[in-house]
Order: sequence, then C-alpha cells, then structure tokens
Amino acid sequence: MGLEALFYPERVLLVGSSTIREEIGMASPALFESIAHNLRSFFKGEFEAFDVKSPENIRELRRLGKTFDLVLLALPPDLSLSALKESVELGIEAAVGITGGYSDEQREEIRRVCEEHGVRFLGPNTIMGIINTDNGLNTTFEKNLMPEKGGISVISQSGGVGACLLDWACYQGVGLSKVAFVGDKVDVDDADLLEFFLEDEQTKVVCAYVEGVSEGRKYLEAAKKFTEEKPLVVLKGGIIEESARRALSHTASLAGSFEVFKAALKKAGAFLVEDLRDLFDASVALEKQPRLKGNRIAIVSNVGGPAILMADALAREGFSLPQLSEETRRELLRLYPKIDPTNPIDLIADARADRFKKSLDIVASDPNVDGIIAITMLKSCYLEPEDVRALVEFSEEHPEMPILNLTPGGEDFALIKEQLKDSRVPVYDSPSRVVSALKALRYWHQRKAA
Amino acid sequence: MGLEALFYPERVLLVGSSTIREEIGMASPALFESIAHNLRSFFKGEFEAFDVKSPENIRELRRLGKTFDLVLLALPPDLSLSALKESVELGIEAAVGITGGYSDEQREEIRRVCEEHGVRFLGPNTIMGIINTDNGLNTTFEKNLMPEKGGISVISQSGGVGACLLDWACYQGVGLSKVAFVGDKVDVDDADLLEFFLEDEQTKVVCAYVEGVSEGRKYLEAAKKFTEEKPLVVLKGGIIEESARRALSHTASLAGSFEVFKAALKKAGAFLVEDLRDLFDASVALEKQPRLKGNRIAIVSNVGGPAILMADALAREGFSLPQLSEETRRELLRLYPKIDPTNPIDLIADARADRFKKSLDIVASDPNVDGIIAITMLKSCYLEPEDVRALVEFSEEHPEMPILNLTPGGEDFALIKEQLKDSRVPVYDSPSRVVSALKALRYWHQRKAA
Repeated sequence: MGLEALFYPERVLLVGSSTIREEIGMASPALFESIAHNLRSFFKGEFEAFDVKSPENIRELRRLGKTFDLVLLALPPDLSLSALKESVELGIEAAVGITGGYSDEQREEIRRVCEEHGVRFLGPNTIMGIINTDNGLNTTFEKNLMPEKGGISVISQSGGVGACLLDWACYQGVGLSKVAFVGDKVDVDDADLLEFFLEDEQTKVVCAYVEGVSEGRKYLEAAKKFTEEKPLVVLKGGIIEESARRALSHTASLAGSFEVFKAALKKAGAFLVEDLRDLFDASVALEKQPRLKGNRIAIVSNVGGPAILMADALAREGFSLPQLSEETRRELLRLYPKIDPTNPIDLIADARADRFKKSLDIVASDPNVDGIIAITMLKSCYLEPEDVRALVEFSEEHPEMPILNLTPGGEDFALIKEQLKDSRVPVYDSPSRVVSALKALRYWHQRKAA
Repeated sequence: MGLEALFYPERVLLVGSSTIREEIGMASPALFESIAHNLRSFFKGEFEAFDVKSPENIRELRRLGKTFDLVLLALPPDLSLSALKESVELGIEAAVGITGGYSDEQREEIRRVCEEHGVRFLGPNTIMGIINTDNGLNTTFEKNLMPEKGGISVISQSGGVGACLLDWACYQGVGLSKVAFVGDKVDVDDADLLEFFLEDEQTKVVCAYVEGVSEGRKYLEAAKKFTEEKPLVVLKGGIIEESARRALSHTASLAGSFEVFKAALKKAGAFLVEDLRDLFDASVALEKQPRLKGNRIAIVSNVGGPAILMADALAREGFSLPQLSEETRRELLRLYPKIDPTNPIDLIADARADRFKKSLDIVASDPNVDGIIAITMLKSCYLEPEDVRALVEFSEEHPEMPILNLTPGGEDFALIKEQLKDSRVPVYDSPSRVVSALKALRYWHQRKAA
C-alpha cells in the first residue's frame, strides 16, 4: 500500500530539463515545460519544478531545503535515476518515472533505491504518469487535457492506450476519477492499484489495459476482491506471438498465454473486451447505468432501418426482443394510432421529445422489458438535438431501467453527444457499440448475482 | 432501364404543400420548403416547386403549360397519387415518391399508372429520394447536406440508414457519386440501380443497405454482373424473425432467409458486412485504396499499445504480421538505431513526418509486406496534425501499396480526419474498424482473381 502519496500528494516536485533533449525518446524541454504547465494549471497542492540544466546540476536537488511527498522524473534514464537518488533525501514517499528506455539494470537500481527508502515507484516509462481529478494532479504533457470528475478510474500499461481513453473521455464529456499509467511496473502494479481503487470512494468502475502481469496470482486475487464491490473492465493486449513479443520489448513485462489469462480473469469476475473502443464503451455504460437484470431489450426509434440493424445486432449476441405486453400495445396505440406498437418500435420520423418521453414511459412499465435502446437520428427526421433531453428526464425518473442511446452518423452523433454529455445516458454511434455496452451491464448483474 | 431521367433530369418539378401537414408522417410545409431549398441551392438544371394549397388545387398541375422529366411527390399518399396522375400529362419520364404510409392498393395504383405512361418510379417511402453530386440533384430535406463528389454510390432501402451514411460522408469529407433511397420499390429496385451504376462512369463502388428483395434471381444476376467490374458492399437488415417482421412493415418487402441470401450474395461476388459502421468503412476503403494482394500487414506506429492491439485484431481475422526482411531491418536501424525494427514497428512517441515518411518508404519496398497500417496518435506523442500529410505523400508515391490510417481517440481522430479528408488515405478510430476495411480490400483482390 502507501499509494496515497501518488494520488494525494501535498507537495509535488517535477525534475526535468529546459536544455537536455534525447535524440530518440521523450525527454525534452517541451516535455518538462508541458508537465509543469499542467501542474500549475490544475494541481491544488504545492508544486515546484526543478530544471536540471546540466548533469552536474542534479546535486543541487538535495539542497532545495524543502520536503516533497511526490517526485516526477522527466529526464533521460541515467539522469532520472540520479534524480531519484537525490530526491529520496527530500523525504519523498512516492515517485513517478515519466520517460522510458531504461535498461534492466537501471530498473533493478530503481527497485533497490525505493525499497531502501520506503518509496513507492510508478513506472518508469509511464509516459503520462498520473491524473487525479479530485485534486487536479495531472502529470501528463498534453497541455490542458484534463477530464471532468467522474467515477471511472483507468489503469493503463500503455501511454498510447491511456491517452486514447483520456481523449475519448474529454471529447465525450465522460468524467474520470483517477488515471494511472503503469509503464514498466518496477514497483506499483495493477494489483496495488486495484486495492487502492477498491477503497477509493470516487472510483465506481475500473477500466484497465493490460499487456503482461508478472505476479499473476496477486493480480487475480486483487481482481476477485475488487469485483466483489465494483465492476472491472479489462482489455488484454498482446494475444498473439508477434504482438506479445512486441509487448515484451515495449513495456518489459511478459504477455503470457492469452487463453489462460482470459479464463482466470473471467473467473475472477472481470469483464473482458477485445477492442479499444469496447474498453471505453463498456466502462462508460457501467459508470452511468444500472445493471441489466435480463436479456429482453426494447428499441424505441425515430427511424426504421437503424432499428432493424440494432435488433439484428442484439439477436447475434444473445439478447432478445420481447413482444410488448397487451397493455403496452394498447397504451401506445391509444396515444399514437398510426404507430405499429411492435418491438422495435418505430415512432416515425416526425417524433419529437414529447412522443419519445411518453413512449419510453409506457415501455418502461412493461414487465417484459429489462432494458431500452433509444435511437435518435436528426438527419432524415424532424428531431432537434434538444429533444433528446427527454431521454435524460426519463433516465432520472427511472433510475433502475437501463437506457442507452444510439445515434448513428457523424454530425448527428456529435450533436447528440453534446446534449447528453452531462447526463446518465451514454451515446454510441453504431449498433455493435451499443451491444458491447449492454453486455457490460449484463455482466455486472451476473457478477453481483454470483 | 430508363433511369437517366432519375439521375440526370433537365427539368424537375416538386409537388408539395405549404399548408397540408400529416398528423403522423412526413408530409409537411417544412418538408416541402426544405426540399425546394436544396434543389434551388444545388441543382444545375431547371427547377420548379408546385404548392398544393388545397386538394382541389392538384388539378392546376396539368395547366402548368410546361414539360418536366422528373417529378418529386412530397404530399400525403392519396394526394401524391393524384399528383402523379396529373404529372404524367406533363411528359415526365420518372417520378420519386418521398413520403410513406401507402396502402398496398395505392402502391398497386402507382405501378399501374407508371406502366401505362412509361414512367419509372422510385419509392414511394424513399424519405430522402435521390442525390447526384454530378449535377447537384438533391431531393433530401436535410438543408445544405450535400456530399462532395466522389466514387461511392449508395443504394439504401431505409431513409435512416441512407441518412446516416450521408452524414458520415459529409462529416468525414468522403465523396459520393449518387445516392438512391429505394423505399417500397414499387418499380425501380436494387437490380435496376446496379445495372445503372455499372454503366455510370463516376461510380467506382456501390454501398448497399438491403432489407428485402422481391426478385431474388434478378438481384443476384445484377450483383454478379456488377462485381465483375466494380466492388459491391452489402449490409442486410432484418436477419432475425423480429426485425424481419419489422422490415416487412417498415418498407413493405420481405426480408427472406438471411443465410440463403448471404450465401447467394457472396457467390455473386458481393462483400457482406454485419454492422452499419462496417458498411461505410469498407466502402470508403474500396473507393480510396488499391486491392490487397496478400494477408501480410506491416504496422508503423508512434505508440506501442495501440500497435499491439492492432496486431491482435489482425491476427484474430486471419491476417499475418510478417517478419520484416533483413534489408528492411538494416535500413531502419541505419536511420534510427534506437528503434527496434520488428513488426509492429514502434517509431517512438517523438516521431514526426520525416521519420514516418522514411520508415514507410522502407517498409513498402519489403517483399514480405502486402499492406500497411499507419497509427498516428497526437496525444501522448509529439506528432502534429499536419505531419500526417506524410501518409498522403506516401500514398501518392506508392499507388499500388494499400495504406490505412488508425487514429484512436476523439479529438485526435477529428484532427487527423481533417488532414486526410481530401486524400486517398482512409482514417479509422479503432483497430476493429481498420480490420473491416482491410477485409474489404482483400475481398476485392479475391473477386478480381476469381
């Protein structure tokens, strides 16, 4: 344990350089300047940047005459290692290795120094380090990329995968709690983070990208304990020999046999996905929506074709489209005599907020329906973007009824996502993405029931 | 035949109303006004709008004292039918039924009238009618939604699916040639359109959404003939009983048994996809890129994790990641000694245009490589959006080497798509989408080789 200083430090020191640049690698004046910019912009604690102008300069670190609880290392490997050795004299409890390219010996050295001084180490090769929306800690070098507060915490072995999740979150207005890029995992690993996130009140769901796990049993035990309380979505990278080999050189931990890992992780209560997009989509659904208690899905749509495709996608993945009850059909017909009250329900292209809201209310009270997909297209319809606020209202009034939105298209999706971004209704742009989200909600029900 | 008047009319008449509105349905003053707006804005021929202020008013149509070759019917069914009967007196060669809700008797009546007067009829229930970017014909009611000129022609049985494809095309700057919404297909059907698009010089690829086909043999023969020359991507909606039932009521043609249809269509040389997103992605790849002559794919990336996930996704779908030749490895190492020249190739996060371009050139000359995926993330990297012009330059210099771009993320994807929109390099935002596009390029090679 002892990860508090990683996520909730009071005094943070960044060690980088405004002059030293790696020929191929991350360490550069721009990196130093960008991380400092983000910490100055968002971090609510104390922050100091130490500029290592020349290698000799590192000795000055211990003469800062202040204590820090977290140090961030953004220099080339050898200099970062020296900086770590100086920083332990400043009373640090945790350190983050931003840059990569460390040798096995250097990694071993980090481990030794940290063990000796009781320092927890995240990385190296985390690339982006750490984010905590609770206190504004943001050690990434993407200037001003700061997600909203939310319930999803991310563990990513890859800077690229984590950056992609972060980008989607910011772009879609999905809130995150904490993000940890774990990199080479010389000390802090996935299991430690799961333990921390289990206790962390703001974390509702963990979204994890894993390439390799060195201590498999420890990880599975942590996953099992975690999923007794909260959902865990995992994407495993490096399932084939070629990419596993690459994963090994990429972040220096063994990918392992995928099938064994998959079976064990499933048994431990995690939800495994295959695509990067599914990782994000499933996590968003789990954070925003209640669990799905059965397989019977109703579709309420203002277009015909996409509703049919949605129905096909559901059927392919084992969901069913229940017949609506007599009462539901009667109620819908009473209000809208020209609408065929068959599931999927086509509300016809001129449906606006009122017709959506009333139909959803009727469908939600049908005992045959476990979850609802609302399809809201703007193009080829009379719907206006603000009409989808009817779904938000519905979701607030029916917190136990899962509802997901499908808005296929480019501009249409962008407009609807703007309307729904602060709400509990997740929005997806193709039927297969909706199915992936529904599967996550179904998983969580089954895990809770197990 | 005789579809020329549908796509290349010289004088178009729109019959709608500024006063009549259906209680539930499409016919409305807004529909009339919006279609007229688009035709006035884009159509290069003559255009006239006839406003039916009251049912009696329809008689005035034949007194217009002019001839037209195409009439668009945007009134409720009974009035549209009357308008059709009047328009045949104006010498029309083709008609488009925009609105829906026709009874079987009314559809039969349309068929009778058109046969008697040698008029080709598209629809009814096309919702969006027809688009031809060649002459600016645009009968949709989405104001100012006009795609760029390009080589993809669309046949859609559903207004919603077609509108979604149109939205993606406009949003991503993908050019289209012609779009035909076929609706209830009382006369012009998919086979007729395939015959027309086979002869149409601007059509390079057809992208089709089909729910049901009444004359299966005619369709399969047309598909076979078409795919001898040009690729055809098909998405079939209504594969399960529930949605097939809905497809039937939705556009009034039988969905049929999916497995039989699928096998026959594949045999006829079409490429079948399962998701709406795949339909668009596959069509774009086929229009922009050469065919993929083998399964061996090289990945060139500035991030590690997404490259590993891309490799996994390729392996799942039967593609291989070849070892790079000795010469390729030597060349890469000579230029970039710190880069591991293993496929997938990680160019490291500070790669810019120059490193991408040089590496791509080296990889393209490797005899083990049939196609390339370039992964270009901005976040967590030093890449700038304009750096991806290196891919455009590469694609122009190597027209026979397939190259696709993967940019996972939200804002990153939006920025890269802007850079690539006028180019031959398609961009996708998740590994599974890239695979779907590659499969299409592979399909086309196999179809040509068959």
